[in-house]
Amino acid sequence: MTSNGNGASGLGHGYYFEDLSVGMEASYAKKISNDDILAFADISGDINPVHLNDDFAAGTIFKQRIAHGFLTASLFSTVLGTKLPGPGCIYLSQSLKFRAPVHIGDEVVATLRVTSLDPEKARATLACAGAVNGKTVVEGEAVMMVDRRTPRQ
Amino acid sequence: MTSNGNGASGLGHGYYFEDLSVGMEASYAKKISNDDILAFADISGDINPVHLNDDFAAGTIFKQRIAHGFLTASLFSTVLGTKLPGPGCIYLSQSLKFRAPVHIGDEVVATLRVTSLDPEKARATLACAGAVNGKTVVEGEAVMMVDRRTPRQ
Repeated sequence: MTSNGNGASGLGHGYYFEDLSVGMEASYAKKISNDDILAFADISGDINPVHLNDDFAAGTIFKQRIAHGFLTASLFSTVLGTKLPGPGCIYLSQSLKFRAPVHIGDEVVATLRVTSLDPEKARATLACAGAVNGKTVVEGEAVMMVDRRTPRQ
Repeated sequence: MTSNGNGASGLGHGYYFEDLSVGMEASYAKKISNDDILAFADISGDINPVHLNDDFAAGTIFKQRIAHGFLTASLFSTVLGTKLPGPGCIYLSQSLKFRAPVHIGDEVVATLRVTSLDPEKARATLACAGAVNGKTVVEGEAVMMVDRRTPRQ
């Protein structure tokens, strides 16, 4: 838990619990491509035609193909695992509310903000929001366990 | 919303709300490979070294590389979007509790069960569990909006 490995990813250890404060924020932006959707369908096995088939999607409330909700929401994990708190933290829980569809070519900006810290348990709660052109498409809350810089005895 | 498209995926429309009952269950199993983890890191941008770097992972509580939690949890979306309720449903929310790590080569079985139905809103709630060798690794609850066979006036 005290490793400061610095390998293929080029990432060392993220924030330690003592370094976090309420209000800290980090973001990650990604434009969702058709290739992303095809690759996500391949990995997950989620071949729901609303993601893959233009004709099927045209007959739904969405009118066109949409990205998998989990593809969009995975950007929360990206911020958590690479920026805030970053490598070394442990994912305990995540809630997700899907507010609006994401289409091919949309740029999703995932923004996470520390909303509370539990020093007893070394846990951080973060509010998570994913937005396209400023409109929220997915939101929720993440709870992480974060390494202490100085382990308790 | 009444499309019964049957395209590239070979999937038609899933269950209509009237066809669902409490207790219905469906599963999807997938063995998580190193390639899956690399592809997920590529799509999501989540290059947390606990997923990608053996040396870093060896220094964590997990001792070895683990799959992204969202990769494992995405199997819930696979069941929802392809089996129960299946194509045509709309993802409203998902909660996730990560209980244990998933390693390369682990087979995850995602099992979803309808726990409640709201006829007024045409919403179904499903309990979600992902297990490796019978041990729960991730669990949560999904809420879906499901097409009615006979739209209300």
